[in-house]
Amino acid sequence: MRLIQARSRSRFQFVLSGFLACCAACICSAANAGDALPSWNDGAAKTAILEFVAAVTEEGGKDYVEPSERIAVFDHDGTLWVEYPLYTQILFAFDRVKTLAPQHPEWKTTQPFKALLEGDMKTVGASGAKGFMEILVATHTGMTAEEFEQEASNWLATTKHPKFDRLYSECVYQPQLELLTYLRDNGFKTFICSGGGMAFMRPMTERTYGIPPEQVVGSGIVTEFTVNDGKPQLVRTPKIGFVNDKAGKPVGILTHIGRRPILAFGNSDSDMQMIEYTMAGDGRRLGLFVHHTDGDREYAYDRKSHVGTLDKALDQADAKGWIIVDMKRDWAKVFPGE
Amino acid sequence: MRLIQARSRSRFQFVLSGFLACCAACICSAANAGDALPSWNDGAAKTAILEFVAAVTEEGGKDYVEPSERIAVFDHDGTLWVEYPLYTQILFAFDRVKTLAPQHPEWKTTQPFKALLEGDMKTVGASGAKGFMEILVATHTGMTAEEFEQEASNWLATTKHPKFDRLYSECVYQPQLELLTYLRDNGFKTFICSGGGMAFMRPMTERTYGIPPEQVVGSGIVTEFTVNDGKPQLVRTPKIGFVNDKAGKPVGILTHIGRRPILAFGNSDSDMQMIEYTMAGDGRRLGLFVHHTDGDREYAYDRKSHVGTLDKALDQADAKGWIIVDMKRDWAKVFPGE
Repeated sequence: MRLIQARSRSRFQFVLSGFLACCAACICSAANAGDALPSWNDGAAKTAILEFVAAVTEEGGKDYVEPSERIAVFDHDGTLWVEYPLYTQILFAFDRVKTLAPQHPEWKTTQPFKALLEGDMKTVGASGAKGFMEILVATHTGMTAEEFEQEASNWLATTKHPKFDRLYSECVYQPQLELLTYLRDNGFKTFICSGGGMAFMRPMTERTYGIPPEQVVGSGIVTEFTVNDGKPQLVRTPKIGFVNDKAGKPVGILTHIGRRPILAFGNSDSDMQMIEYTMAGDGRRLGLFVHHTDGDREYAYDRKSHVGTLDKALDQADAKGWIIVDMKRDWAKVFPGE
Repeated sequence: MRLIQARSRSRFQFVLSGFLACCAACICSAANAGDALPSWNDGAAKTAILEFVAAVTEEGGKDYVEPSERIAVFDHDGTLWVEYPLYTQILFAFDRVKTLAPQHPEWKTTQPFKALLEGDMKTVGASGAKGFMEILVATHTGMTAEEFEQEASNWLATTKHPKFDRLYSECVYQPQLELLTYLRDNGFKTFICSGGGMAFMRPMTERTYGIPPEQVVGSGIVTEFTVNDGKPQLVRTPKIGFVNDKAGKPVGILTHIGRRPILAFGNSDSDMQMIEYTMAGDGRRLGLFVHHTDGDREYAYDRKSHVGTLDKALDQADAKGWIIVDMKRDWAKVFPGE
């Protein structure tokens, strides 16, 4: 053995020096790439992202993926922007009830509208899914697609989150903005895949995340094409269409994207199917969850939360190779401009 | 009047010379652009396309459109590829019945399968929409999305159109391939918006048209996410989902694209709503129909045709400013490599 080592030392040294040079190049490349993620602290999550992107973009490498197949999907609420203490779209719906109230005198005596207008949120909550659907239909349907887009756009451009004193459309996570850009710079096409309404998200996604409306997959209202006074228009009917949540997410991905992503990022048990579907494809894959652990800079919630429940996914993460991104530990910054 | 003309001649000449220089630049630019469409004969249709693209891309011009809003939608059957004598997807379904027959001995005695297997197309036709739905469900559902994609892919890569002796996937119109490239070179994002099935089209659209699966809008089968033996998969159920035809087309555009196109190209009355919706937006718009007038090089059919009926749109084109592209007159070539 000694003999063999001695005889082949020069060859071994040659191979070793090649290997070290290769490692140095990798580390160097990863370090350079790391500059693209300054709001991510060094750690397992950042390393997993950098190694994954290096692997799938290395031409000739065993994990190489053609640019056209570099599809990355991100959940929205709690993954790209704040979802606590209530999903932003619900707050928008509540505000619209107040705005529309003068045109609906009957709401003064009809639940859950009465309670909402009186600020009695306990009764609103007690009205459950049925009550919420009534609020959704009353505030999200009966207008043209363009009218609704304008309403959502105006609200997002003017309404602030009380805790952060910044517009809801600016309650977005700086590390994720960097990650989206980093992925696109590496040939990825980035998509949103959310349980939220497409029509609510699309007015802000291009400006905020660089994700155009056609790359936003979400839930929808059944819409009809009609010609009104000679004017063709799309009218939002009082009927829920596709629900892009839980087991709906892989279906929404198939319908809108038509390819299986190689990277999926969520933050709750509702994202498990999207991430399972992503990870089940051939070749190298990456699945990640944001874990909201930072009560000071944002919020701390998981297993028992009324929004963004993260419970089963936490239990299964290790066994399934999912990366848990710990907001407090892994993110140097939470919001832009901090 | 004479006096005013005489007094302002030098200014008038200045303005005129500026105007002419501008025109020369436009014509020159249009002529250069024209090289991108060598299979289009000079004429009203080609001029309308060149002028439209020049107008919406001229920075500072009154018709300028931001690149992100340069959305162009194309119908598929009869607009980008041959649809005669029967839609290609129907021929695929018929072939699949023959392939699957050994696994379905009951088809020997069940219509419309019996007639189809015996080549009795009259009886198949007489089975109407109900018969066709049975064939569709039998051939397009009950497998995973990936299995279906493989079937469609294999068939498209191996099956030839009898009249042209070329693969169906090569029965595509050369002038349209040039137009798609020309539009993309001018900052447009190109989409397909077809009554056909997304899952049938997507395996060939990127290679053939440079249009990736996520930019293909079409009809769909209701698909479900299930985990089978620990393997997450998407299964095509025997239930028709969204039908992206006629008044469905603007709805499909809203759902998948989320912006109103500025250019729409179809070939039948089924494309009218898509084109009406496109034309009804603000600013400059272009709507076009292929008119199949070339019985020698392709087919000649319109008002009375059983596929791609072009009747009402022909009557309304002049009044609505739609461009009718006459295949025989406007296309120097029909297929690639001719």
